[in-house]
Amino acid sequence: MAFDDTILDRLYDTIASRKGGDPEKSYTAKLFARGRNKIAQKLGEEAVETVVAALGETPDHVVGESADLLYHLMVLWADCGVTPAQVWGELAERQGISGVDEKKSRKK
Amino acid sequence: MAFDDTILDRLYDTIASRKGGDPEKSYTAKLFARGRNKIAQKLGEEAVETVVAALGETPDHVVGESADLLYHLMVLWADCGVTPAQVWGELAERQGISGVDEKKSRKK
Amino acid sequence: MAFDDTILDRLYDTIASRKGGDPEKSYTAKLFARGRNKIAQKLGEEAVETVVAALGETPDHVVGESADLLYHLMVLWADCGVTPAQVWGELAERQGISGVDEKKSRKK
Amino acid sequence: MAFDDTILDRLYDTIASRKGGDPEKSYTAKLFARGRNKIAQKLGEEAVETVVAALGETPDHVVGESADLLYHLMVLWADCGVTPAQVWGELAERQGISGVDEKKSRKK
Repeated sequence: MAFDDTILDRLYDTIASRKGGDPEKSYTAKLFARGRNKIAQKLGEEAVETVVAALGETPDHVVGESADLLYHLMVLWADCGVTPAQVWGELAERQGISGVDEKKSRKK
Repeated sequence: MAFDDTILDRLYDTIASRKGGDPEKSYTAKLFARGRNKIAQKLGEEAVETVVAALGETPDHVVGESADLLYHLMVLWADCGVTPAQVWGELAERQGISGVDEKKSRKK
Repeated sequence: MAFDDTILDRLYDTIASRKGGDPEKSYTAKLFARGRNKIAQKLGEEAVETVVAALGETPDHVVGESADLLYHLMVLWADCGVTPAQVWGELAERQGISGVDEKKSRKK
Repeated sequence: MAFDDTILDRLYDTIASRKGGDPEKSYTAKLFARGRNKIAQKLGEEAVETVVAALGETPDHVVGESADLLYHLMVLWADCGVTPAQVWGELAERQGISGVDEKKSRKK
């Protein structure tokens, strides 16, 4: 499969592997157990924190909040059955790069 | 530099190259011209749309809204002087992978 | 009924009266026609705009965005079958004022 | 002054009186002490919770989250030096009612 060896892809795989896990042992498993409403709420909250960081805090805060945002976005993807490859494919298409070309260009 | 050849990295490079460009010719250049408040607002709005898609629409909508969200997040990064490598580094660190190891593992 | 003669109550009544109205003639009727997902999305977006106004714009902008926020909040209430009186009652209760006392105190 | 005897106006007065108060004794005083970034963030988060409640929970949840939203909105107003009367005036103007007429109509 294309697009599958980045830090985000590996984070996604870790996240997806926590589905059905023990909520006592893993924050991610706990989020899945609380359900999609809660996961979506967390994504929205992290986006607000990123907005606030960009408008009133330092670039380092933007980095930290963006990492939180991306983590919760991928928990939501996993809960909805969406894979990173689908989103990378969508972005590549918008940039006029077919998934196949994208894969080739990364292999160089 | 590590982490620099994914679809997101290339999208970021394209975005960053639009800084100071003609707002009539590029949506990204227009966003930069409107300033950080507007960029941050767009990020917040796309997050809300992703939340709504996850709770009431199809996985395909989640893919599309997530692509919008990631695009606007990276416009905000570029405006704040944050690079994708900083965010990947933060995520790698949280996963217990140093930036150096991460680079090596991707080169395999 | 208690709490029913303020500007917000009257705005709510106007909003509720637009349900099923001609989307070509009324923005509110158009929102109802587009459905709850769209209404909720608009509320979220207006909240983001209020956050941005508070962090980077003038108090006048905060006033304007807050008015937009309250309007869309009440469209959402009307769509969900929630009345202003229920929300005022909830706020009064949290303040330790029963709905009945609240009504009396306003009639003085 | 017009528009000054509703539950929201009184809640606002209570909130404003907490400025500079002991953060150990009052949640509102604590919010003021944490500053505008934190207050704005809380508003954004409560809006997300209201969106989630409207899309996936019961009308009772919408009532509760809306009360939280309005409370935090008014803390933000107090922090920005915005008064409820300014927002009611803005809403009245949009409805084609001058502040003066609005006052008269409420006195009937």
